[in-house]
Amino acid sequence: MDCFNLKPAAIYAAGFNYKGGSSMKILLGKPVADKITQELITEVNKLKEKCVTPKLTIVRVGNKEDDMAYQRGAIKRCESIGIQVDVKAFDDDIDEIEFIDGLKNINEDKSVNGILVLRPLPKHIDEDKIKNIINPNKDVDCLNTINLGKLLEGDKSGFAPCTPTAVMEILKYYEIPVESKNVVVIGRSTVVGKPISILLLNKNATVTICHSKTEDLESITREADILIAAVGKAKMINKSFIKEDAIVIDVGINVDEDGNLCGDVDFEDCKDKAAMITPVPRGVGSVTTSILAKHVVNAAKIQ
Amino acid sequence: MDCFNLKPAAIYAAGFNYKGGSSMKILLGKPVADKITQELITEVNKLKEKCVTPKLTIVRVGNKEDDMAYQRGAIKRCESIGIQVDVKAFDDDIDEIEFIDGLKNINEDKSVNGILVLRPLPKHIDEDKIKNIINPNKDVDCLNTINLGKLLEGDKSGFAPCTPTAVMEILKYYEIPVESKNVVVIGRSTVVGKPISILLLNKNATVTICHSKTEDLESITREADILIAAVGKAKMINKSFIKEDAIVIDVGINVDEDGNLCGDVDFEDCKDKAAMITPVPRGVGSVTTSILAKHVVNAAKIQ
Repeated sequence: MDCFNLKPAAIYAAGFNYKGGSSMKILLGKPVADKITQELITEVNKLKEKCVTPKLTIVRVGNKEDDMAYQRGAIKRCESIGIQVDVKAFDDDIDEIEFIDGLKNINEDKSVNGILVLRPLPKHIDEDKIKNIINPNKDVDCLNTINLGKLLEGDKSGFAPCTPTAVMEILKYYEIPVESKNVVVIGRSTVVGKPISILLLNKNATVTICHSKTEDLESITREADILIAAVGKAKMINKSFIKEDAIVIDVGINVDEDGNLCGDVDFEDCKDKAAMITPVPRGVGSVTTSILAKHVVNAAKIQ
Repeated sequence: MDCFNLKPAAIYAAGFNYKGGSSMKILLGKPVADKITQELITEVNKLKEKCVTPKLTIVRVGNKEDDMAYQRGAIKRCESIGIQVDVKAFDDDIDEIEFIDGLKNINEDKSVNGILVLRPLPKHIDEDKIKNIINPNKDVDCLNTINLGKLLEGDKSGFAPCTPTAVMEILKYYEIPVESKNVVVIGRSTVVGKPISILLLNKNATVTICHSKTEDLESITREADILIAAVGKAKMINKSFIKEDAIVIDVGINVDEDGNLCGDVDFEDCKDKAAMITPVPRGVGSVTTSILAKHVVNAAKIQ
């Protein structure tokens, strides 16, 4: 298991001391993503023996830097696994009807196993109108209502959103027990907060969901064995929000006052108090594209 | 507002003292159901002017006493509103394929606006195979994956399950504030626990979901401003689980050692400590059929 020990900055490969606190650890995304990648390479090779090459189509509107960065990461990851990637880029000012037609054509293309629509879309394109155009079996990032429903039902035949699934994979890889733990999720979006809460509940965690209307947030988060921050506010969570030896998972991707990438958690402030903590960058975000790739491979299998 | 005060057994119509505790109240389902019924009568009369009579078909397998009781309640409620009710009863030992064919026929019948399948079905009929046969627009008790997905998305065009919706209507009727309150839900079923958690979250409550694997349940439930019990264990929740002046909503319908109906909450033990409490019977269960009727009327409107 690869991980960094915080004091000093040297790399330790020692096992975790979950209850300890003396062996504080940074939970890096890379080893998690690497393990998934290795497993997928084997699976893709088997599919290729059957003359099946999984294919992902990324649908992008405009040229936002966030989208371009995610696209680069997804292409790199998929190609390292042997997944074919195609990008369909639309102009920023594309008409909604034209976009819908374009998406329908992509969906009907039998060579496409998985479709990823980079979000958020420009405001003039209504996500509610496009989310169910994609065939549920190609909907690798859970845009569909039916895949959300399957998530709620605990039906694993659907695709859960990539980011919450990445969080679950990190917890699994680092052997962090979830059952009967008090997990507090900050954020209730349909893309992260609600799905991660359901995935954790399905793994027998006791889950509290907090949000902007929660009163005395700190008193609640301080009870968390595992705290998951998915708020979208740079460095909002400082050490007063966490209990000693908590596990802190940071889903946020923000830009701080100096223009650097940072999470929802003030990493420097929290790192000595937490037992384990994901960094931003190099944490949850590093795992997301491997989940996307996994979903594309699974999609190729069921089609 | 109609309600009972617990001491003595006389009826009080006084306003609530939410923070008080001195004016403890039983939250009866009947006035909530009556209000909804009155509103529906007006709506159905309007529909009848347009020659539309909403129609519910109840699908029953076997003659279980629970099902028969619910059916009687639903028919009585619907008929009092002017909704037509048809019952399709199948033998307990009906073949799965034959049942599926029967359900498909009911679904295709254009005169049927809403379909209620009484659950649980006998073990030899796989609910997963039948849940998506019903058209989402006729799926008045949220058996469909797509209606569950809409619930998660906060899309009100779908039908939420009747029992969780009944809980929300009780809270609304008795003017119990939900926003920013700490609500603890015990139970995580797809029919009650998860949906009620999402409905509460959509109303800005901070929600904790507990279940059989939760450790030290009492310490968590004692923090609840509003406690919702949906466990299915007779009188499991006694006063040690609730804080002074908590609001207690009991979704359970069980039979106690004397053969009497009772909830998940030990009503006698909790009534002096809670600020407000729903009884069983005459609580949440009394509201469910009015929600069902409301969904049938809404279904008639969208068809």
